[in-house]
Amino acid sequence: MYEAIKESFVKQGLMQTLNAQLIEVEKGQVKITCEFSEALTQQHGFFHAGVATSIVDTACGYAALTMMPDNSEVLTVEFKINFLKPAHTPALIAIGKVLQSGKTLTICEGYVFDKNEEKLIARMTATMIAVHA
Amino acid sequence: MYEAIKESFVKQGLMQTLNAQLIEVEKGQVKITCEFSEALTQQHGFFHAGVATSIVDTACGYAALTMMPDNSEVLTVEFKINFLKPAHTPALIAIGKVLQSGKTLTICEGYVFDKNEEKLIARMTATMIAVHA
Amino acid sequence: MYEAIKESFVKQGLMQTLNAQLIEVEKGQVKITCEFSEALTQQHGFFHAGVATSIVDTACGYAALTMMPDNSEVLTVEFKINFLKPAHTPALIAIGKVLQSGKTLTICEGYVFDKNEEKLIARMTATMIAVHA
Amino acid sequence: MYEAIKESFVKQGLMQTLNAQLIEVEKGQVKITCEFSEALTQQHGFFHAGVATSIVDTACGYAALTMMPDNSEVLTVEFKINFLKPAHTPALIAIGKVLQSGKTLTICEGYVFDKNEEKLIARMTATMIAVHA
Repeated sequence: MYEAIKESFVKQGLMQTLNAQLIEVEKGQVKITCEFSEALTQQHGFFHAGVATSIVDTACGYAALTMMPDNSEVLTVEFKINFLKPAHTPALIAIGKVLQSGKTLTICEGYVFDKNEEKLIARMTATMIAVHA
Repeated sequence: MYEAIKESFVKQGLMQTLNAQLIEVEKGQVKITCEFSEALTQQHGFFHAGVATSIVDTACGYAALTMMPDNSEVLTVEFKINFLKPAHTPALIAIGKVLQSGKTLTICEGYVFDKNEEKLIARMTATMIAVHA
Repeated sequence: MYEAIKESFVKQGLMQTLNAQLIEVEKGQVKITCEFSEALTQQHGFFHAGVATSIVDTACGYAALTMMPDNSEVLTVEFKINFLKPAHTPALIAIGKVLQSGKTLTICEGYVFDKNEEKLIARMTATMIAVHA
Repeated sequence: MYEAIKESFVKQGLMQTLNAQLIEVEKGQVKITCEFSEALTQQHGFFHAGVATSIVDTACGYAALTMMPDNSEVLTVEFKINFLKPAHTPALIAIGKVLQSGKTLTICEGYVFDKNEEKLIARMTATMIAVHA
């Protein structure tokens, strides 16, 4: 499972551009991290909300994929994200967890933490759909 | 208004990294575009949902800012986005529009279109908050 | 189409309890109204947000159903709603419109207006799923 | 705190109409329940999504209020809710919990369970705003 997701992850140009790293893949949970750089900021010099959103959406998508049959693909139907604290940290840690998986739809919860996983920076709820390749 | 927003936009490292361009600033509406490149893809070679989300969140934020008093700053409280069609296009065009502006909160509608502004790729609703600098 | 939806609507105990009326069914759009009563209030004596939400969710669901094959059923996967103005009006008018309909999922936009359809009280975006009976 | 919230709760006409009961008020958490009746159904005879939504929105609002200074009022800015399982149960139990409280905005997580609190029927994330009376 890790190998298939790792292979898919490295094909994602955006994940390379953000210098994001896939650091954990378990059944129902995926963790992605991303180090701070000037290339990822908003106008006040912190991580742009779009970076946090991109990695936690990706983590939720792969978490959903771990629950699906082999050869499935996953697409994001929609998500909602609340930004709770300024993303002022040396690295973001995004965790995607499956809340409920069905044949067609999988609902995930996403969390974005600071580098020490102490401060919750953002909370996502996402709806993913399986596409059978 | 355009000058202040342009100045803020160029300070956003992520907007430079995505090679995004601020192409329109009107009272209550902002348009941002982003050309396709391999650096912005998901695993199937189309634009990553995170790119569409990042530019339309930014467009909504600046649209909200056009309604606020001088020297305000704007932060994203939360947004929800539905992905309607694959982002298979030479460029994304993101439009942020103010639906309602209040003293504290501004609600925006975001739209992400393909290059010809014919195909609606994603729809966002965002809540922005004014921060008085 | 109107007959089938009307028949379904009258089976909804909650719609009777709210004294909601189905006032328009067109392909891709449904309108439901609900008159003010003390039985529908929050603590300040205006319409409870739950009333606005219930009727616009129902309007979105039936709007989705108008796009589906005969004998389909529709379920709400999720929705997000922003409350823009106090629901201080003699009647709510809820409109559900299909933004995009697919084989499995239909995305709808919902609007809740005051009695004169002048003041936008709430905005919903909903994801509906077809269930084949 | 319980007394002030109880007093507000009984002023909510809709809560009486739904026959909802306020069963727990703690700092940062509120629980509301609602027994099944034909008056609360959708067309298949289960609880209408609007009932679950109304009570969990109310639970989130009061949970937010427990964190605010005396004489505050709370309004729902927006929420998003995912429906995970059919609401086929003799009673709904809605729990609103504060995820983060700030001076202006409070973010809450809402959960709707079946009567035994075993089956998660719906998940909400809500943004509440304090209004100083």
